Amino acid sequence: MNLLLINPNISDSVSQLIASEARRSAAPGTTIEVLTAPFGVAYIETRFEALIGAYAAAQLAAEHHARADAVIVAAFGDPGLAGLREVLPVPVTGLTEAALASACLLGRRFSIVAISQRIRAWYRETVQAYGLEGRLASIRALDQALADIGSVQDDQGERLVRLAEECVDKDGADVIVLAGAPLAGLARTLRGRLPVPVVDGVSSAVRHAESLVALQPGRAQRGSNAVPPAKPNRGLPPAIEALLRSHPR
Amino acid sequence: MNLLLINPNISDSVSQLIASEARRSAAPGTTIEVLTAPFGVAYIETRFEALIGAYAAAQLAAEHHARADAVIVAAFGDPGLAGLREVLPVPVTGLTEAALASACLLGRRFSIVAISQRIRAWYRETVQAYGLEGRLASIRALDQALADIGSVQDDQGERLVRLAEECVDKDGADVIVLAGAPLAGLARTLRGRLPVPVVDGVSSAVRHAESLVALQPGRAQRGSNAVPPAKPNRGLPPAIEALLRSHPR
Amino acid sequence: MNLLLINPNISDSVSQLIASEARRSAAPGTTIEVLTAPFGVAYIETRFEALIGAYAAAQLAAEHHARADAVIVAAFGDPGLAGLREVLPVPVTGLTEAALASACLLGRRFSIVAISQRIRAWYRETVQAYGLEGRLASIRALDQALADIGSVQDDQGERLVRLAEECVDKDGADVIVLAGAPLAGLARTLRGRLPVPVVDGVSSAVRHAESLVALQPGRAQRGSNAVPPAKPNRGLPPAIEALLRSHPR
Amino acid sequence: MNLLLINPNISDSVSQLIASEARRSAAPGTTIEVLTAPFGVAYIETRFEALIGAYAAAQLAAEHHARADAVIVAAFGDPGLAGLREVLPVPVTGLTEAALASACLLGRRFSIVAISQRIRAWYRETVQAYGLEGRLASIRALDQALADIGSVQDDQGERLVRLAEECVDKDGADVIVLAGAPLAGLARTLRGRLPVPVVDGVSSAVRHAESLVALQPGRAQRGSNAVPPAKPNRGLPPAIEALLRSHPR
Amino acid sequence: MNLLLINPNISDSVSQLIASEARRSAAPGTTIEVLTAPFGVAYIETRFEALIGAYAAAQLAAEHHARADAVIVAAFGDPGLAGLREVLPVPVTGLTEAALASACLLGRRFSIVAISQRIRAWYRETVQAYGLEGRLASIRALDQALADIGSVQDDQGERLVRLAEECVDKDGADVIVLAGAPLAGLARTLRGRLPVPVVDGVSSAVRHAESLVALQPGRAQRGSNAVPPAKPNRGLPPAIEALLRSHPR
Amino acid sequence: MNLLLINPNISDSVSQLIASEARRSAAPGTTIEVLTAPFGVAYIETRFEALIGAYAAAQLAAEHHARADAVIVAAFGDPGLAGLREVLPVPVTGLTEAALASACLLGRRFSIVAISQRIRAWYRETVQAYGLEGRLASIRALDQALADIGSVQDDQGERLVRLAEECVDKDGADVIVLAGAPLAGLARTLRGRLPVPVVDGVSSAVRHAESLVALQPGRAQRGSNAVPPAKPNRGLPPAIEALLRSHPR
Repeated sequence: MNLLLINPNISDSVSQLIASEARRSAAPGTTIEVLTAPFGVAYIETRFEALIGAYAAAQLAAEHHARADAVIVAAFGDPGLAGLREVLPVPVTGLTEAALASACLLGRRFSIVAISQRIRAWYRETVQAYGLEGRLASIRALDQALADIGSVQDDQGERLVRLAEECVDKDGADVIVLAGAPLAGLARTLRGRLPVPVVDGVSSAVRHAESLVALQPGRAQRGSNAVPPAKPNRGLPPAIEALLRSHPR
Repeated sequence: MNLLLINPNISDSVSQLIASEARRSAAPGTTIEVLTAPFGVAYIETRFEALIGAYAAAQLAAEHHARADAVIVAAFGDPGLAGLREVLPVPVTGLTEAALASACLLGRRFSIVAISQRIRAWYRETVQAYGLEGRLASIRALDQALADIGSVQDDQGERLVRLAEECVDKDGADVIVLAGAPLAGLARTLRGRLPVPVVDGVSSAVRHAESLVALQPGRAQRGSNAVPPAKPNRGLPPAIEALLRSHPR
Repeated sequence: MNLLLINPNISDSVSQLIASEARRSAAPGTTIEVLTAPFGVAYIETRFEALIGAYAAAQLAAEHHARADAVIVAAFGDPGLAGLREVLPVPVTGLTEAALASACLLGRRFSIVAISQRIRAWYRETVQAYGLEGRLASIRALDQALADIGSVQDDQGERLVRLAEECVDKDGADVIVLAGAPLAGLARTLRGRLPVPVVDGVSSAVRHAESLVALQPGRAQRGSNAVPPAKPNRGLPPAIEALLRSHPR
Repeated sequence: MNLLLINPNISDSVSQLIASEARRSAAPGTTIEVLTAPFGVAYIETRFEALIGAYAAAQLAAEHHARADAVIVAAFGDPGLAGLREVLPVPVTGLTEAALASACLLGRRFSIVAISQRIRAWYRETVQAYGLEGRLASIRALDQALADIGSVQDDQGERLVRLAEECVDKDGADVIVLAGAPLAGLARTLRGRLPVPVVDGVSSAVRHAESLVALQPGRAQRGSNAVPPAKPNRGLPPAIEALLRSHPR
Repeated sequence: MNLLLINPNISDSVSQLIASEARRSAAPGTTIEVLTAPFGVAYIETRFEALIGAYAAAQLAAEHHARADAVIVAAFGDPGLAGLREVLPVPVTGLTEAALASACLLGRRFSIVAISQRIRAWYRETVQAYGLEGRLASIRALDQALADIGSVQDDQGERLVRLAEECVDKDGADVIVLAGAPLAGLARTLRGRLPVPVVDGVSSAVRHAESLVALQPGRAQRGSNAVPPAKPNRGLPPAIEALLRSHPR
Repeated sequence: MNLLLINPNISDSVSQLIASEARRSAAPGTTIEVLTAPFGVAYIETRFEALIGAYAAAQLAAEHHARADAVIVAAFGDPGLAGLREVLPVPVTGLTEAALASACLLGRRFSIVAISQRIRAWYRETVQAYGLEGRLASIRALDQALADIGSVQDDQGERLVRLAEECVDKDGADVIVLAGAPLAGLARTLRGRLPVPVVDGVSSAVRHAESLVALQPGRAQRGSNAVPPAKPNRGLPPAIEALLRSHPR
């Protein structure tokens, strides 16, 4: 099984974190490919950055999905995921969606620990869009500017643990979600140091993508995830235009 | 006052409808400019099409906002609006946001009448994202393929009236929102033929944009609508990159 | 265009604040008339006071609406607004409804800054009744007894700014609503001193009332905002009785 | 124990229905007094009529509460109840609040059967204001003009039974609320003819008022149900003005 | 009238508290019987303990309901209540359901004061299951291990009062619910010492059970509270098996 | 990896369906064991039956979990799951929780197709308890008595397909959940015949249980899923009593 992980941002160092954790998480026989966006920002904290990342993810997915059994949007907030689900012929998930699915299988209320104060509004809206606000205990985040997005785990590890403890003791979290691709693999490192189960977007997305392939649930022929109705278009990158032409399926 | 309306789709005929209704709605002294997306689809019915439209709207806004006192994303679903609010130095609104604001000033529960069955999921999610699902009575839509997006008002006018009647009588709507840029101006035409107040995205957006300029509420220096924190970026269109550089404000 | 603002309370000093801000906010050609309740309390903090204010607003509206193109209930909490919308032949809005519409056009989550602790429950219920609780970040309020309702802006200005800062920094507000007719005009004074956009009930209501008149959305002939069905009544003030007789429209 | 039931409407025939059912429902030793509003409408279907009824209820309660151990607002929608709870020194409830409390003690989801189509919006808003919309299965209502509000039970009995059946079989109701003072006593008559438990506002309010007196829960000294803070007032009926003066308690 | 109160836990000392408060609360002519679970735990703080208590309550109710006019599940969280409502031929309620009904008759928002930190999640879920989360201001709880469940009122009385004060002053509660059978009767003791009305599960359940018997609302023949459809069963205690056989009713 | 599936009902034929589908779904190297309840009913449609099934599931889990890497409650509605999560030292999930997790990874809104009308209330409450009501499009169910629970798939297959079609076309479902252990494996059979993705509780639970074991998220030492605090107990089956003794972990 081939999984294609799309980093909708330009950070090669984060793509390497993603790839490492994805390979550690994958079942035997699963191959992992990680693509880095050719345009965009270092990491997504805001709606405008997510808008850019969504378009970058769409282009990469359009160009490269043919060799994948499933596609993973590898940034928290899942930029572009809802749209890609309509046009890709294979299952697609994202780090937030997958991490929240894991969290919901482990407890009633989860908290998200994140890498910046600013990112909290975007994460909250993502959780709301998934209809899971009722299970969100809190979002806590680092409050200092990040020196280096690729080394935030090393620089801020202890502070992240303390934030998680506060989520449990003050906010009533039963599960901790370590959020953001720059934290990929940290859940594995912290195993046993947190008082509640902890989940990670990359490992969750790899496992759940494998499951979606295995379950063979079928594709949408009708409803809101079917391919968009045919209509005129203009000026689109060829790969994206091809996705819009690819119906019926 | 100069208002810049951005049609995130490629339909020149729809841009003309938008421009006509905008000019009819504007206060004396307000000038209206409508831009049509250089790339994209004819009209947005789905999340994937909205993703494309959002990026097109971002590019147009980045390139042309300097001469505008306010910017309007002129498609239902408001693709790109939330992101643009973070980076533009002027007020920005969209057809859905503005129409729902009008509806909420006219009654407790509103229904949306739309141009296609498929579009309903995307509209529902837009209403949910605005936290207004509790006021949504229903979404009803035409159920036939559109012959011509530019003439849907003429072709389907009677059917749209009947849908609006059903929203009132069966679903309990107190206000009707005629949704989608292709219906721009129809509310004006139907005035007096519907049993409840009816609102339109274009006229609402023009009026509310004028109000936002007049009220001078100030810009966000902090919070989730401040300019995104500075971080590395790469490969972006120059105008978009400039928006990300434009802090502090 | 003639706008009739009804202060459902007995404070002449507050009516003057309302009139001043309304005139500063109105478009050229709009005339402003402010009426003060002949009976009631100095300002509304509770449900019982709102009940009285609603009846006073109804009487004033019944007596004086004939010369108005739109009516504004000029107290926060909008006492009587929902009922007046059924019986008046012109658009009607209120300070809270209008301020929240402005806030929703400026950001995702708003906070309300208010003049007394006690008033918070009544404001919260008002926001809930409008179905906007999901966008309410917080309500913060002064915690000292007011020396003079007409000079609260001068006496408590700095404290109100600090409350607004807390709403942004602690509660995640993207917009501040300065609530209560006694704060009319303060948003204008504080322009540039707050880190996020700030809106005001009076200026918002004036602008939105003008827009409702301009948009000509039509009146409700059916649904919950049509004139109440004819039925026996007794002992009502003549102007109110006339409103109940004024159907069909 | 003396219970004071206030009919905020002018219908003497409805007051008689209320009195009869209240006396049938009361415990031994409870005395029932029913007052009819000196001004207002025949029955409340709309928000404007409720506004009038609230003020009438407030006046009657202010004038007559001294001889009561508890007060009941005897119209569906409970006009004035929330305000009266702040100022009366005795427990106060209303037909809707009490019927919903009964319904919640009998099953998970309830439907309301009502006397007119128009009344449904007002009832829905009442249920929402009580935070109980999640338990509301449906509101169904007679769809013909009422010949005589005092004889609706006789005229429309069979139709009301059929509406209740539809609530159970189509909407998933576990309990039926027969709503509106004009239906007082009908639940008793229909006993055994409906497939689920059925409750009535008057009998529920009498029983629960007795319970509130017996439980002696204490009065609010702080919080949103304490007497409103002292402030200037003018022109109020003496009994209402006395309520506002009656603090501390 | 005979009321059967089932303590689904093994604490005889708590059963005595329950019995005392029940007898103090009952109307003249009502007899009180309290049964203690033959198996289970000392008191319920968690979902697993509630699962055990539910089964114990079901067995006791199955064996003893024949001599009761109504049954009360006498532990907070109401273990087994929803199931018993389907199979018992008499009204059944529980301490939480009844206390929340009382609270809803006394104010808009209530807080729960509880005996342990751990119990808060279980209580929150109980309130959510009743659809009343919108009226829940907060849950505050003792934070020390209990020396003796039977004497918690004496040992921790002052601390419980302080928690209630915080619920009012910090969380906006209008009513306090003293939660848990081990606190039975404390509301009576604290009368006059709290700034808002205070309610108790046992006294509320006794009063409301009496009301349900008096109102004679009828039993469910259809809907989700009718007796479960006949189907094979095996190995059940005879009394439980008899309940499943007891249809139609 | 050893997975223990607990059928909380007495139907051996259903246990065989569960075992067959579980083995088809499991990864290589996963062994499947299915236990059938020694007491209970044929299948769960109601809250009372779920109460019994929860206790049966608890007993079986207590007795047999030692040889399992994860435990699955193999009935829709997940009786006992929330409690078992507190006391078992291994991951535990249930058919509903797992099927909903799959559904949420495949689309925005799901519908449930079920085997009886009566079961709908219990399913709705289960979905609500998981905080997923916002994603539930509808629950549709067979409306005839089942001849044989073990052969419902064969007897009613076509009718189930039609119900699923209605969920998509009338209710807006993007994913279908075939609910109830008696339908285990049907999703596999219907693959390609439904217009949207379809998921199944057994296959989902097997895949997700495998993922939870692989992800090693850690166990709850604090929060609402830690082992219940030590307290006296009496009369419990030895295996259940041992679970309560098994802390700390």
